[in-house]
Amino acid sequence: MKLRHTVVLFASLCLGVGAAQAQFQKPDDAVKYRQSALFLMGQHFSRVGAMAAGRVPFDAAVAQENMAVVMTVSQLPWAGFTPDTQDVRSRAKPNIWTERAKFDEARQNALNSIAAMNNTVKAGDLDAIRRAFNETAASCKACHDNFRN
Amino acid sequence: MKLRHTVVLFASLCLGVGAAQAQFQKPDDAVKYRQSALFLMGQHFSRVGAMAAGRVPFDAAVAQENMAVVMTVSQLPWAGFTPDTQDVRSRAKPNIWTERAKFDEARQNALNSIAAMNNTVKAGDLDAIRRAFNETAASCKACHDNFRN
Repeated sequence: MKLRHTVVLFASLCLGVGAAQAQFQKPDDAVKYRQSALFLMGQHFSRVGAMAAGRVPFDAAVAQENMAVVMTVSQLPWAGFTPDTQDVRSRAKPNIWTERAKFDEARQNALNSIAAMNNTVKAGDLDAIRRAFNETAASCKACHDNFRN
Repeated sequence: MKLRHTVVLFASLCLGVGAAQAQFQKPDDAVKYRQSALFLMGQHFSRVGAMAAGRVPFDAAVAQENMAVVMTVSQLPWAGFTPDTQDVRSRAKPNIWTERAKFDEARQNALNSIAAMNNTVKAGDLDAIRRAFNETAASCKACHDNFRN
């Protein structure tokens, strides 16, 4: 029993979601949940990206607001990649579940990049933000290239 | 020019989204954005609800984590109710745009209820949380009854 608890705890920590781990009524909800979180992430991330690329004027307060949303929402999607969603139609590739350690590493790289980018946005140096944005975008792309159809 | 600025500022404040107001590539994105935010809101809100209803044991830390997500995500959907989304297929009723003041009031009621509920969750008294949950659920329902098919 104790071992089982330890295994469950370890699995939760690996998923990076701890006690907030999602409890979905059905696999479809888990898919919708992760897609919703990733979509919101992308929207707010790209608004900072538009500033980094000079497409819209840099506004430190707006950039920080957007990054605050990204910081919160980027914690969420991972809980939706439950094994029981493998049969639900989505762009998720099966190796998410067969190469879980690699997937978790890719997720952690993305979260680390986002946290670093959040710090540069708080500091407000546009050149540093641009570099951090590019690094984060690359970490998103790496995960999409490997794990998304 | 100054008047125009004032009008834009006032409109932004009324929408309650200030500088973080969404900028969507197309109406479909605005709909997907608001649906994503509302879905995440519902998921995390209902996890606290499950504790309030006694379906799962009350865990103060988990409840607070979920409410923190609700607090952030509940700020978002409103920016997606742009007038150019009226022709996009969704459950949104047309009176969102013809009775905008009423819609904004319903939104504000929901946000106020969520903020009050967040305080009770932080305080940790389960009876108070139950009451706050019911009030918030009623504010969600009021908006759905009036503005959602």
